[in-house]
Amino acid sequence: MKTIYITRRETFNAAHKLHNEHWSDEKNWEVFGKCSNANWHGHNFSIWVTVKGEPLKDTGFVMNLKDLSQIIKDLVIEPLDHKNLNLDVPFLKGILPSTENLAIEIWKLIEEPIKEKGGALAKIKLVETENNFVEYYGGNQPF
Amino acid sequence: MKTIYITRRETFNAAHKLHNEHWSDEKNWEVFGKCSNANWHGHNFSIWVTVKGEPLKDTGFVMNLKDLSQIIKDLVIEPLDHKNLNLDVPFLKGILPSTENLAIEIWKLIEEPIKEKGGALAKIKLVETENNFVEYYGGNQPF
Amino acid sequence: MKTIYITRRETFNAAHKLHNEHWSDEKNWEVFGKCSNANWHGHNFSIWVTVKGEPLKDTGFVMNLKDLSQIIKDLVIEPLDHKNLNLDVPFLKGILPSTENLAIEIWKLIEEPIKEKGGALAKIKLVETENNFVEYYGGNQPF
Amino acid sequence: MKTIYITRRETFNAAHKLHNEHWSDEKNWEVFGKCSNANWHGHNFSIWVTVKGEPLKDTGFVMNLKDLSQIIKDLVIEPLDHKNLNLDVPFLKGILPSTENLAIEIWKLIEEPIKEKGGALAKIKLVETENNFVEYYGGNQPF
Amino acid sequence: MKTIYITRRETFNAAHKLHNEHWSDEKNWEVFGKCSNANWHGHNFSIWVTVKGEPLKDTGFVMNLKDLSQIIKDLVIEPLDHKNLNLDVPFLKGILPSTENLAIEIWKLIEEPIKEKGGALAKIKLVETENNFVEYYGGNQPF
Amino acid sequence: MKTIYITRRETFNAAHKLHNEHWSDEKNWEVFGKCSNANWHGHNFSIWVTVKGEPLKDTGFVMNLKDLSQIIKDLVIEPLDHKNLNLDVPFLKGILPSTENLAIEIWKLIEEPIKEKGGALAKIKLVETENNFVEYYGGNQPF
Repeated sequence: MKTIYITRRETFNAAHKLHNEHWSDEKNWEVFGKCSNANWHGHNFSIWVTVKGEPLKDTGFVMNLKDLSQIIKDLVIEPLDHKNLNLDVPFLKGILPSTENLAIEIWKLIEEPIKEKGGALAKIKLVETENNFVEYYGGNQPF
Repeated sequence: MKTIYITRRETFNAAHKLHNEHWSDEKNWEVFGKCSNANWHGHNFSIWVTVKGEPLKDTGFVMNLKDLSQIIKDLVIEPLDHKNLNLDVPFLKGILPSTENLAIEIWKLIEEPIKEKGGALAKIKLVETENNFVEYYGGNQPF
Repeated sequence: MKTIYITRRETFNAAHKLHNEHWSDEKNWEVFGKCSNANWHGHNFSIWVTVKGEPLKDTGFVMNLKDLSQIIKDLVIEPLDHKNLNLDVPFLKGILPSTENLAIEIWKLIEEPIKEKGGALAKIKLVETENNFVEYYGGNQPF
Repeated sequence: MKTIYITRRETFNAAHKLHNEHWSDEKNWEVFGKCSNANWHGHNFSIWVTVKGEPLKDTGFVMNLKDLSQIIKDLVIEPLDHKNLNLDVPFLKGILPSTENLAIEIWKLIEEPIKEKGGALAKIKLVETENNFVEYYGGNQPF
Repeated sequence: MKTIYITRRETFNAAHKLHNEHWSDEKNWEVFGKCSNANWHGHNFSIWVTVKGEPLKDTGFVMNLKDLSQIIKDLVIEPLDHKNLNLDVPFLKGILPSTENLAIEIWKLIEEPIKEKGGALAKIKLVETENNFVEYYGGNQPF
Repeated sequence: MKTIYITRRETFNAAHKLHNEHWSDEKNWEVFGKCSNANWHGHNFSIWVTVKGEPLKDTGFVMNLKDLSQIIKDLVIEPLDHKNLNLDVPFLKGILPSTENLAIEIWKLIEEPIKEKGGALAKIKLVETENNFVEYYGGNQPF
């Protein structure tokens, strides 16, 4: 067995705010600070999607990166790029758009389409700034 | 004469949209595309401020980077970070917040305070994404 | 006058070799070293195209980045990406594909189309590796 | 037990193409797209080699990075740098040089020499472009 | 269970040397090379601290990044930034300041304070140069 | 005339402190802050050397990058790498090792050797951290 992991990056630029509607403005400010700014702020996000499998004999590929890229573009970049994560994104309706929650919701969207193309989604890394990111392994705890 | 150029970077995250209020939505979409999304989008901006001068004999500095950093933080990062460039920023009132216009307005804010600390503002570079940035030399054309 | 400079990056991956056909293999090796390998080598190139002008009142743009990006993609990336610079590129026929020569030839291709869209080509930066790049100002010497 | 992981990066620039010789040109184009260009293309590759172990009492090192660097340079960079992965590399003979296959073959080359210097090869990360890379754990599946 | 991993980066600049006081200068030079320079050398270090947990319902956070950042700044950056790792740092007294040992000592400092804020320290990555870094999982071996 | 600019990067890691020996410790602290730490601190420096000229007909090169790289390694990296800029470097004797002064002194060292190989030194960029750098044009003021 020669399991190997391939990763593809895509990027999107979006606005959001961190705000709990059940809390007062003071409480929101206390917890979220300037991230709770009423008129939004935004980021250049990058998403790194990792798929595992064995290289196919005919192609040397775990999965064709063109297919992986297309899935991410269609299901993640298209609905998120140049959008407001709180207002514009159907799959985030009712969900506080922290980077953590965003990564978890993206997993649900792309796991099955990747499987249909022969890959096994192994990890999503979502980078918000040069100083912070989240990693999600479908709920698994590799460490 | 030993003129040398020093540069300091600071960063801010902000929301904005490109939208000309004198135009129809169709015209805005045609020109600005997804950058005109009504509910905003956002970026991790970085600003690189370049100051020129001769190194002082006592310090080897053109200008103390602590002073330069403080000026940028007070006059640029404080009003822009985690803000909406169209709605929240007094010095951008009535100005379409393209990266070009933003750089020009920032120049006006920091030129004099830098001079008061002994430096000569030479250039502002404003990076919006890994694929685009603007550079402003106070209107000069070095090339 | 508020001249400002905007820059757009695009990328391409290509093979090439540095080889002077009027020289012996020994001479080629002496001058070009491993860059003269008969069976080629390659790079991830990135090209940064800088255009100058004044921001337009209606858009805040020197030039629409969509137009600039399209020109680069059509005239530079399309003919160069995943190609052999010595064999596959009509506009490099008979030209030794050093990074210097490549930048000069690209200038000739895109200067006029950029002008037609209202911009003035000011600089091309062509990055070959993380350790080297060239910059071309149309033959001008800003410094 | 204080197992820790150390990583060393080295780089090489190479040409290759993705092409299955048992397939028609049409089939190769359909699967590999522009990566199948007959006259090759190329990349700036970077390889990150991770070794695990406990820090030695005398040095604080899992393994001397000079030794690790020398092994990578001798066995990986020397045969691959400024070469054609399809034509010039003995250890890739008969192997389709996808990034996946390349990582797997490199593992075989460096595992034993690293062990002889007291380290345990834990991971190879091979970066092809800023948008894709592969990771290989010797066939293990940490996640 | 939706375990997710969040990472925060902080940076510090420090001097150090690698030198075993029980060895002759020759032996130190043989093992550590120029890293044993008597008058020190230095690096821009960056530290990436990873915490795991489930996103809280009220915040979408595993742990507030402000708290994580403050812990790193107080316990790691404050004692290490612009310091000499061999001479100035109480928690490194008697410890050879290799990157490996530094990461292990930092773990001990921040594990408990992170737990008090509701997070579980999962990994420390310490980057010394663009070509090398170490990763520590508290002694665990995820791969 | 087709003047073009080529740039080569090299790196070194060094310790230094900013300290004016004619000042009290208090005055040094007031001006230089933690950069005046008595026991030094350090950085990963990178130096970008730019040479201008016209591409030669036979090579397509302004100047052979191998020669440029060798000059930088011999005259800059060798004396500075893993050294103490205040104590170990003959060409910095008596000079306060600010990044500004360091760039100016390096210019004097490499200008002539580059000329002997056919190039004209045009610019030195010296990067101290991801947040600051200096640029020196031999005293010229391009902007």
